[in-house]
Amino acid sequence: MNGRSTGAGDSAHRPSFELLVAPQGGAGPRAGILRTSRGEVPTPAFMPVGTRGAVKGLTVGCLREMGASIILANAYHLAMRPGEKLIAGLGGLHRFCGWNGPILTDSGGYQVFSLAASRRISEEGVEFRSPVDGSVRFFSPEGVIGIQAMLGSDIVMPLDICPPGDAPPAEVEEAVERTLRWAERSVRAAAGTLAAGQALFAIVQGGTDERLRRRSAEASMAIGGFGGFAIGGLSVGEDPARTMETVRLTAPMLPADLPRYLMGMGRPGDIVRAIGFGADMFDCVLPTRNARNAQAFTSRGTIRLRSAAFAADGSPIDPDCDCETCRHHSRAFIRHLFLAGDMNAAILTTIHNVSFYLRLVRDARAAILEGRFEAFRDGFLARLPEGGTPGAR
Amino acid sequence: MNGRSTGAGDSAHRPSFELLVAPQGGAGPRAGILRTSRGEVPTPAFMPVGTRGAVKGLTVGCLREMGASIILANAYHLAMRPGEKLIAGLGGLHRFCGWNGPILTDSGGYQVFSLAASRRISEEGVEFRSPVDGSVRFFSPEGVIGIQAMLGSDIVMPLDICPPGDAPPAEVEEAVERTLRWAERSVRAAAGTLAAGQALFAIVQGGTDERLRRRSAEASMAIGGFGGFAIGGLSVGEDPARTMETVRLTAPMLPADLPRYLMGMGRPGDIVRAIGFGADMFDCVLPTRNARNAQAFTSRGTIRLRSAAFAADGSPIDPDCDCETCRHHSRAFIRHLFLAGDMNAAILTTIHNVSFYLRLVRDARAAILEGRFEAFRDGFLARLPEGGTPGAR
Repeated sequence: MNGRSTGAGDSAHRPSFELLVAPQGGAGPRAGILRTSRGEVPTPAFMPVGTRGAVKGLTVGCLREMGASIILANAYHLAMRPGEKLIAGLGGLHRFCGWNGPILTDSGGYQVFSLAASRRISEEGVEFRSPVDGSVRFFSPEGVIGIQAMLGSDIVMPLDICPPGDAPPAEVEEAVERTLRWAERSVRAAAGTLAAGQALFAIVQGGTDERLRRRSAEASMAIGGFGGFAIGGLSVGEDPARTMETVRLTAPMLPADLPRYLMGMGRPGDIVRAIGFGADMFDCVLPTRNARNAQAFTSRGTIRLRSAAFAADGSPIDPDCDCETCRHHSRAFIRHLFLAGDMNAAILTTIHNVSFYLRLVRDARAAILEGRFEAFRDGFLARLPEGGTPGAR
Repeated sequence: MNGRSTGAGDSAHRPSFELLVAPQGGAGPRAGILRTSRGEVPTPAFMPVGTRGAVKGLTVGCLREMGASIILANAYHLAMRPGEKLIAGLGGLHRFCGWNGPILTDSGGYQVFSLAASRRISEEGVEFRSPVDGSVRFFSPEGVIGIQAMLGSDIVMPLDICPPGDAPPAEVEEAVERTLRWAERSVRAAAGTLAAGQALFAIVQGGTDERLRRRSAEASMAIGGFGGFAIGGLSVGEDPARTMETVRLTAPMLPADLPRYLMGMGRPGDIVRAIGFGADMFDCVLPTRNARNAQAFTSRGTIRLRSAAFAADGSPIDPDCDCETCRHHSRAFIRHLFLAGDMNAAILTTIHNVSFYLRLVRDARAAILEGRFEAFRDGFLARLPEGGTPGAR
């Protein structure tokens, strides 16, 4: 609008990563800066999820104010509606959604495989019916690179195969191998398609199997051409006790000088632990989705804002929080809005929850930079009634 | 929260009104300042409607940013849920809803009479069943003053009788007389109940009958003790051609030195016309409610944001608007969000619509102060395709 630049013209440069604090021996918490043409992302970073281009409940001004530096959108959802061509015609995804900072787009492979009706997977790609209009669509590794090239996202994710958490070992292994073959095709496609400012990440699969994770990581590194490495295939129904252990084992397998993105998880305790294992980037729908269901995250655990216990509670959601919601509103008021079916209940709780996640990674980063991460992590986990999520610390 | 003051302690003073521009001969547009213990309200003023304490779709920070100086809440709705005692126990309505500027509370008489189940009206008051819990409740003129005293609203509205727009003359006349008897009781109750910073307004009824309007206005003035005068009983189903004519006739009947509040209406053209007739304060659910139904107000008339015509429209809702929505987002994006069922569609459209109304009264005020209101009004109405709403200009 009004002549605003999309922020990535001729001067666009490929995203680069600088580590400010790197662990001794390769395993441990890191602090860095991911530099993109549209701005810097201090890491560890949390990416609020704006599946269809908007983070539900938050304006872009609100996101900026609470300190978001990068958001996530979903190429599959945007390709289904309104379509990548329409978005490209309007100047690209940043201009379309009004967020001029960095955007990572997930390919949506996970959504295609888990949600789309009548999907048919082959070596070539996946055929499925659009849930929007029922039309038959085909996603290939090359196709999703093309979609994200048109969207103009700063970080591009390849099409991968993410088997369910209870898949048999043979299926997990085949997913790793096909994901690797698709990764090669993606790198080739990216070379001819992506703009200067766009980086392609690799996705490491392998379920909770250390050998397969290593195979996936090493073969991806051998392919080369990736600007970062993601850990996929977790929080998809596997034994929860194995989730964090897999993060702990996998993170050090990844290149030390590139950002590591733990896809689609998790709870605050998970994120703090994963930071300790060397993960740099996170996304999760919990702070936004759970806010709409009246669940708020606090430094002492989660609370259900519809609870009668809060009917006359004049204290803010989280006494340790300085977000706009906690500065102005009590639990009693937000509960009142939830009971009245007022959309502001979801808005106010989303503001708090996303602020909580953003502050969590900011605080973790400060602790890493000041050499006191372990104390920060242990103190944070000790305050959670559930002690975080089960699994390795 | 966090020690914030409610802003109206010992230094609370009764709201006062200063006219900066007053029309020659009593009829015509006015510009003034309504001063309350919680801040100044430049008039003409539009009050965004926060029935249950929140303006749907907008945070208090957002309201401040777009220039709202006063909001409206509904004593009836708040008394039904969460209850005035609970709100008083949490420090009053301002602290409860997090808005520390002035608040006008409607008594909710209109809602009781038009919405509540099994209502039974007597000279004493009205008995009805709470739509929240089915309990039998009783509202009297004294009772609603007491409720608003507990809420701590800056401007208090009395219980009145608002007959439907097609009521026979005898019913309208009886409504005027009972409203006057209730006004007397309200003034007596207010004297012993309201705090120093609270002002009680009168409500003038009389349908579209000039004689009854005059009777209502003059008898209310004779009662005395009011800090302002409201014109009620319009936009309730009467012949639309009579609505603005009634405003034109009634406004000059009211005290020149007190604020005049035109209750519950209307469309942008109505408001501009009513300002020309000497009304000072307005509230209306249209900008918020219609936003949630994808209708946006613009300087060229209303548009339906779900329309296929906007599918690839990269221009903002209103090219003449500088609100947060129009600065960052296109019609195509907001349409996409409406089709996807994303709550941000309603949020972004609400930001625009309320900004539009607030700017409209701000522009009208500037025009009055600069002695060019007629040109402003005529130019504004000429740009609307429908020429505003039928009725007298």
